Amino acid sequence: MRGLHADTGYLLYRLGLRSGQLFNTSLQESGLRLRHYALLRFLAGSEGALQRELSARLGYDPSAIVGLVDDLERLGLVERRPSPGDRRSRVVVLTAPGRTFLQGSETAGQRVTDELLAPLDSAERETLHTLLRRVAEAGLA
Amino acid sequence: MRGLHADTGYLLYRLGLRSGQLFNTSLQESGLRLRHYALLRFLAGSEGALQRELSARLGYDPSAIVGLVDDLERLGLVERRPSPGDRRSRVVVLTAPGRTFLQGSETAGQRVTDELLAPLDSAERETLHTLLRRVAEAGLA
Repeated sequence: MRGLHADTGYLLYRLGLRSGQLFNTSLQESGLRLRHYALLRFLAGSEGALQRELSARLGYDPSAIVGLVDDLERLGLVERRPSPGDRRSRVVVLTAPGRTFLQGSETAGQRVTDELLAPLDSAERETLHTLLRRVAEAGLA
Repeated sequence: MRGLHADTGYLLYRLGLRSGQLFNTSLQESGLRLRHYALLRFLAGSEGALQRELSARLGYDPSAIVGLVDDLERLGLVERRPSPGDRRSRVVVLTAPGRTFLQGSETAGQRVTDELLAPLDSAERETLHTLLRRVAEAGLA
């Protein structure tokens, strides 16, 4: 029993929490929380998504998604539009102000990363990033 | 804007969520959730901890900690005892059944890790683990 860090899965869970806390702190002045940010980032890489798709991909409850989209729509960062495939359902899309907001928040993301990875040199950071991407690509959106 | 995986900090956050979901699934039959497990694992590496210390180290609200400790105490996995340093406050300690439970759950942790890291070979897993440990040791409990 080696306490907290015995296996990599658990280590990832704990570091993920810490990263999330740092993101939340850096997002505070914008009035958004990390879940809003995650939703915006997901939309930036898509043409728009159904709410149930956001729920499945981000791992948040469907009811939470509705509230997050409401918040972001009020701020003008996303819009609900009729789905091109099915006019009865609506997709959530990033607006131009949403894209601008995300671009502005990239420095915040970089700050979080720098703080978190302070113990590693740049070659090690690159290695870590590459390995994490491969893990992520096997299963994340 | 590269969607989800632009920076390592965010990637860690997203993979941490996924790892947490896998842990929660594997803990289901025990009736515990990941937060209980995290608390037990923290205690396994300590001589006992004040509730406020658990809150600070694990990053959960103080009110959440009280409920988690209540649950675990009911199951006999932890105990509240008078603090050796200050008889007016109480520390939470792992009991012998708590230690046995944790040992039994190590295979669950290993399963989660294997599932998560499936895209990597064993040398790559070792590299990832070493890098994550160094990041964790700089700031985690």
